[in-house]
Amino acid sequence: MKRLSILGSTGSIGKNTLEVISRNPDTFKIVALTARNNISLLESQIAQFNPEVVAVFDGSEAERLRSKKLPVKILSGEEGVIEAATLENVDMVVSAIAGSAGLMPTLAAVKAGKTIALATKEALVMAGSIIMAEALKRGVKIIPIDSEHSAIFQCLNGRDIEEVKRIILTASGGAFLGKSASELESVTPEDALNHPNWDMGRKITIDSATLMNKGLEVIEAYWLFNIPVEKIDVVIHPQSIIHSMVEFIDGSILAQMSVPDMKGPISYALSYPHRTENVMPALNLTDVAKLTFEEPDHEKYPSLSLTYDALKRGGTMPCVLNSSNEAAVEAFLNKRISFTAITRVVSKTMAEHSVLKGETIEEVLSASIWARQKAEEIINETEN
Amino acid sequence: MKRLSILGSTGSIGKNTLEVISRNPDTFKIVALTARNNISLLESQIAQFNPEVVAVFDGSEAERLRSKKLPVKILSGEEGVIEAATLENVDMVVSAIAGSAGLMPTLAAVKAGKTIALATKEALVMAGSIIMAEALKRGVKIIPIDSEHSAIFQCLNGRDIEEVKRIILTASGGAFLGKSASELESVTPEDALNHPNWDMGRKITIDSATLMNKGLEVIEAYWLFNIPVEKIDVVIHPQSIIHSMVEFIDGSILAQMSVPDMKGPISYALSYPHRTENVMPALNLTDVAKLTFEEPDHEKYPSLSLTYDALKRGGTMPCVLNSSNEAAVEAFLNKRISFTAITRVVSKTMAEHSVLKGETIEEVLSASIWARQKAEEIINETEN
Repeated sequence: MKRLSILGSTGSIGKNTLEVISRNPDTFKIVALTARNNISLLESQIAQFNPEVVAVFDGSEAERLRSKKLPVKILSGEEGVIEAATLENVDMVVSAIAGSAGLMPTLAAVKAGKTIALATKEALVMAGSIIMAEALKRGVKIIPIDSEHSAIFQCLNGRDIEEVKRIILTASGGAFLGKSASELESVTPEDALNHPNWDMGRKITIDSATLMNKGLEVIEAYWLFNIPVEKIDVVIHPQSIIHSMVEFIDGSILAQMSVPDMKGPISYALSYPHRTENVMPALNLTDVAKLTFEEPDHEKYPSLSLTYDALKRGGTMPCVLNSSNEAAVEAFLNKRISFTAITRVVSKTMAEHSVLKGETIEEVLSASIWARQKAEEIINETEN
Repeated sequence: MKRLSILGSTGSIGKNTLEVISRNPDTFKIVALTARNNISLLESQIAQFNPEVVAVFDGSEAERLRSKKLPVKILSGEEGVIEAATLENVDMVVSAIAGSAGLMPTLAAVKAGKTIALATKEALVMAGSIIMAEALKRGVKIIPIDSEHSAIFQCLNGRDIEEVKRIILTASGGAFLGKSASELESVTPEDALNHPNWDMGRKITIDSATLMNKGLEVIEAYWLFNIPVEKIDVVIHPQSIIHSMVEFIDGSILAQMSVPDMKGPISYALSYPHRTENVMPALNLTDVAKLTFEEPDHEKYPSLSLTYDALKRGGTMPCVLNSSNEAAVEAFLNKRISFTAITRVVSKTMAEHSVLKGETIEEVLSASIWARQKAEEIINETEN
């Protein structure tokens, strides 16, 4: 019986995780759940999974939940989420809080020696060197939940990274694959939220449309698999059937495929090194009929160049890329800036950043705060 | 230093194997080479690789080679090939003799405890139960060289076969993929020998065009991976980029890809469990642009149904399928029968066979001889 704490249980990954767990009640026990503020969903999850502890990030929502007198310990604030991530009787922490808010709880879970099923890529994007060093020191396994990284993890299956020539991340191309660079100027949040293959949260769907999500995944892969940035490539694969590939030194490529369904990578992470039966519907390749591949258009999608640049400059730069992007995506969703302004905001913020080594979490967090403020300034200028 | 004996060194697989070895002279030492009758090529291989022993199946060609007074021990006949397959100082035997002639030397190598790099699928098709039982008894590893089986072997990478839902063999569809069933009536050997993706021997190229090669591979996979016949599928994939796939119980599929180049699977088998650098040119998926998949047309290609039927009936039936097919392909290449008559000959031979258990090699060999004779009778009737 694996004892789990799910950070971000009311988000898209959290819900899918609970669905996988509900099908395997004899294998998994939910010890803790955490949510930002969706207490109505959290309440029904409490009823179904009977956790010992829940944590609600938003203090007043935590109070509202407490008033319901449920048979569960209710924590609040970031401290509460961190406590839920580090409970002594938890074996594995599913890190699925969207965005940079997931960093500190994930780091705390690593420090507490928990096996991590990682969906919060921002934890590695912002503080990869710190988290991986802590994981190495404590012998903590970090198993990816992102479909691309799960694909690579499945293709590697314990093989020596020295035998890898190249990791090839596939990208659907997002909502605007067919549009020209100039057409992108006028797209709306509603257009961008209409992802062709995956049903995901709002932030990540916008990041898919800008390809920034793929850029963040390049950074995630860099840390997770300890592979030089030159060995990480991106290819556009609109069908989202091949979730990523590994090219080995002999020229052989292994690819992992399935129908696009997050329950696959979630289940793989939860039951690793074993597989669980009937997680996803079978993929029928003759129904799919064809898989296509194209080079990403770097002019249309500056995100990729920005992320490779951020990785090469290292230190706090990837964190600044991520935090300025969070601010810019929020501004786009609030119709303050245009779609193409998102990457311009990121690029301008990066240009003004003086890179620090980012060896302490304080340095990382202050770079993140600086980046959000700087991005906000740039957004304000863009508006006026 | 791995010490190798190459059975069938002058054939297509043999030549590719020697090319791989010539690039890694510090890793491999050629102890023995065997050939049917191409002594001019064998002579140049002797000069280049300096083996201790060669065996020439054809007695008079062996005599001709002996007259050249080369600094190598020259054996002849099947006994000679078997001796070359079982030399004490050999670690690994590359079994690459085309067709049923490879059976006895391969079996002898297994009995002698040699690791087998297996290209001669007929050994398993004819006597899978005997060979696998001997291999199990002696702890002998049989590593596939067939590109499809190498792909599956790479995708499995030591995983439990219990976690496999399905093996999916890919088939190029051969030379006549675009032709209708009625157009196939009049195709010539020259048409059939023109394979779109792979440069192979004559027999296997015809088997690709009838899809019998894929049928034989289904039987090979059945024995090699110890998987029920119901879990082996075939899909047409004309580009020959994905060499085969494994579907796991959770719905996840692993696929192995590369440019079509036999040096890939050969090198993998020779250096397993490691990989060697720069064996094949890199595969550029954006140049390939698309991979397509379709169901095989069982009416147009009766071979697949025949092989599944032969596997289900078991015992000596797969051997009869293989040997009658060898006779029929020969007759087609000699323009005695039409292309579509090949599978009719096999089907009629199978219909007249009374299945025996095939638990001894004598029973298998006599079924093989019976099948060739019966097929010859049917071919004669077809001609007249």
